[in-house]
Amino acid sequence: MKTFSAVTLAAASMLIDAGDLQAQPGDSALIAGIFSEVLHHGEAHENLHVLCKQIGHRLAGSPAADSAIAWGKNLLESYHFDRVTLMPVEVPQWIRGEEYAWYSYNDQQYKVPVTALGGSVGTQGEITAQVVEARTIEELRQMAPEAVQGKIVFLNKPMDPVAINTGTAYGGAYDIRGSGPSEAARKGAVACIIRSLSTAEDRFPHTGATDYQDDVPKIPGAALSVVDARALSAALKENPMLTFTLSLSCRELPRKIQFNVIGDITGAEFPDRYILVGGHLDSWDIGEGANDDGAGIVHSIEALRALRAIGYRPRHSLRVVLFINEEFGNDGGTTYAENSRRDGVYHVAAIESDGGGFTPRGFSMQGTDKQFEQFKRWAGLLEPYNLHAFRRGGSGVDIGPLKNGQVALFGLTVDSQRYFDYHHSNNDVWENVNKRELLMGAASMATLVYLIDQTGIPHE
Amino acid sequence: MKTFSAVTLAAASMLIDAGDLQAQPGDSALIAGIFSEVLHHGEAHENLHVLCKQIGHRLAGSPAADSAIAWGKNLLESYHFDRVTLMPVEVPQWIRGEEYAWYSYNDQQYKVPVTALGGSVGTQGEITAQVVEARTIEELRQMAPEAVQGKIVFLNKPMDPVAINTGTAYGGAYDIRGSGPSEAARKGAVACIIRSLSTAEDRFPHTGATDYQDDVPKIPGAALSVVDARALSAALKENPMLTFTLSLSCRELPRKIQFNVIGDITGAEFPDRYILVGGHLDSWDIGEGANDDGAGIVHSIEALRALRAIGYRPRHSLRVVLFINEEFGNDGGTTYAENSRRDGVYHVAAIESDGGGFTPRGFSMQGTDKQFEQFKRWAGLLEPYNLHAFRRGGSGVDIGPLKNGQVALFGLTVDSQRYFDYHHSNNDVWENVNKRELLMGAASMATLVYLIDQTGIPHE
Repeated sequence: MKTFSAVTLAAASMLIDAGDLQAQPGDSALIAGIFSEVLHHGEAHENLHVLCKQIGHRLAGSPAADSAIAWGKNLLESYHFDRVTLMPVEVPQWIRGEEYAWYSYNDQQYKVPVTALGGSVGTQGEITAQVVEARTIEELRQMAPEAVQGKIVFLNKPMDPVAINTGTAYGGAYDIRGSGPSEAARKGAVACIIRSLSTAEDRFPHTGATDYQDDVPKIPGAALSVVDARALSAALKENPMLTFTLSLSCRELPRKIQFNVIGDITGAEFPDRYILVGGHLDSWDIGEGANDDGAGIVHSIEALRALRAIGYRPRHSLRVVLFINEEFGNDGGTTYAENSRRDGVYHVAAIESDGGGFTPRGFSMQGTDKQFEQFKRWAGLLEPYNLHAFRRGGSGVDIGPLKNGQVALFGLTVDSQRYFDYHHSNNDVWENVNKRELLMGAASMATLVYLIDQTGIPHE
Repeated sequence: MKTFSAVTLAAASMLIDAGDLQAQPGDSALIAGIFSEVLHHGEAHENLHVLCKQIGHRLAGSPAADSAIAWGKNLLESYHFDRVTLMPVEVPQWIRGEEYAWYSYNDQQYKVPVTALGGSVGTQGEITAQVVEARTIEELRQMAPEAVQGKIVFLNKPMDPVAINTGTAYGGAYDIRGSGPSEAARKGAVACIIRSLSTAEDRFPHTGATDYQDDVPKIPGAALSVVDARALSAALKENPMLTFTLSLSCRELPRKIQFNVIGDITGAEFPDRYILVGGHLDSWDIGEGANDDGAGIVHSIEALRALRAIGYRPRHSLRVVLFINEEFGNDGGTTYAENSRRDGVYHVAAIESDGGGFTPRGFSMQGTDKQFEQFKRWAGLLEPYNLHAFRRGGSGVDIGPLKNGQVALFGLTVDSQRYFDYHHSNNDVWENVNKRELLMGAASMATLVYLIDQTGIPHE
């Protein structure tokens, strides 16, 4: 444990009994101390290296996710959290297996990297069929069934490049992945391939869950990279009769038990009231899940490590939760919220990081008007750290189920320009997380924890 | 040339005669049009690829800089600027040549990547000497001359990790590079090696100019990477008698003439009043000068390309200047300002980009209080693009000499966390510039050009 400067520590202990919803004179000094600790001695980047390089990707249900759970538990114990527990969570098991694809015309074959959408059924050997391209789900719905019957539907909807926050563009294109395969099946297609939800002009396909609808057969779904989707579209214009061959050997196994990892630091005044930080420990089963959401995991752990390291004694209990299975059903978040309700666990606030390890820009908030007013009062303390975005909006998928009209939910807002270059692809690797950017996010989360802990946030 | 939507064009032409220093109702739509053009059709990333990969680094005075000048001129001509001219500038010629280094103790040699500081004299063969380490220039000044005499001074000052804007940390450590060799010479040292001014934990040494003082002999100066500086420091603690061998064959040649490249779009109302955008075309002679300052070059060109592409007809003349030799004496900026003064060229404002191709955060400004007030009034139009930083501060080295109490000077402020990971090193390559981040910067510059052109900015 590092020792914090005597002056700032004195300022901090002065504050511990304040709690009147006002910012205190010592806040700036303590926040400076948090940033100093994290930027000098932060361990998030090295922790992320271990998670990414020793464990790698870690789809819920996989043995790698078991390893990640053990890693998380050991790490929290090594940081001397007061209590580290494992909460059982039932998760699906989906196995990718081998996958490949090509298209051919004029006796030439063009191999394309391909990735099954999460949850897709397999192809049971190779499927070869003609391709019918639609730009949008709407366009597909307008098509005559006989134009689609027996073919592979190719949904080629780009993410809107003009959306300044790329999450908005992701939301706008999400439907081709989420409902594409079922909408294609509704027209009699034999498979569905989509342009990756990606902002990058490269050859990495991006996976992610598809949501099969119950009233149509399940057909295989897979993604092509942006570059390959462009090339296929151009080839189709010249050779409408070209055939596409897809082989996916993915399959589902029975559900199994894995765990949310929970670490607590007991509060001095309100040990039964929790301020929660967290992210999701699982990732998709390609790449290393570095930005999605290894960054959120090491952000959350570092935030509480740093507060302890500067000698800060919290009034409320501080809890870090490494949720299991955000990507494929949100089992960790749902189970955590259900158990909390059952056991009467009182959450003051919850803060999630699931936007990657990029430069922090602020926080979004779900809560009451009074909570939002309180939150806005902290803006002046955060602006010196280049945090300017204090908006109402989503917080995080894992903490979402905690919403009860009382707990204040926050999401760390980070610069979003690069996130969808990497997300759910083989390119989401540790090398694409910058150390300073990552550490700044952890310090920002620690600061918000501190402010909530000191000032409280209205519950009524 | 792309056509802009009729509605927005009408809004724009309505505005052309406004000029009453007020934001106009059509501004938001036109700014949205700029971002749409740049994010859909922006050519900055591809232009940067050509500059980085076909030309590469381009130190002023080098044949590569000649190629870059020709490239810039051709590119501006291909974009149909109304006038493209070359302005002669006298620049130094400094040649790096071969360089290598190692240290040795206990009969073992440890090779280290090394880079001569810009302008350094050569070693005339190998120099081998013991090493004396100081953390700061101040510490070196305190040393007894006999402790330094005949040795190699090793200045091992880290950049302050806590400075949120890394430029501040750079400024704080700059003296070991700028005055280290001369201060070491003052104590009788035979050479000076420094820890690179870098935020990255890697093995890339970073170059940059050293400023020899006139009253002491010139001794060779070179930089080690952060990792090697750490290792050398640790080795010295165990083996204070270790020797360091340095070989630099750099040398100076006579000054020669190169050129600022200037492209103009003639204004409809005030053809003799210029709004200038620019960056510097030269780079250091390692890496590709992608962020420093290829990004500023393609930002500036793209800003004016996009305004033309949407059919915007400026009131004032718009000028892009690709300055030659910022890095090693600011000859391009100084010559441009001198010629402007001589020829009575009237600048309304100048905007420089020299912080890399990272996500834009706003602008800094040098100007009068009234100009700053005007500038702040635009904040509301820029915040939807996540631009929040509107501060007084430096603008840019190249445009700095234009300062005359009248022209408003702006610097594009970009996220600074990664800049000094790459800057002046072999790692400043195209791959380390993200396309969306780069384009956002160009659109931000185009927006400020538009606002200044429409609203004017007080000169008095």
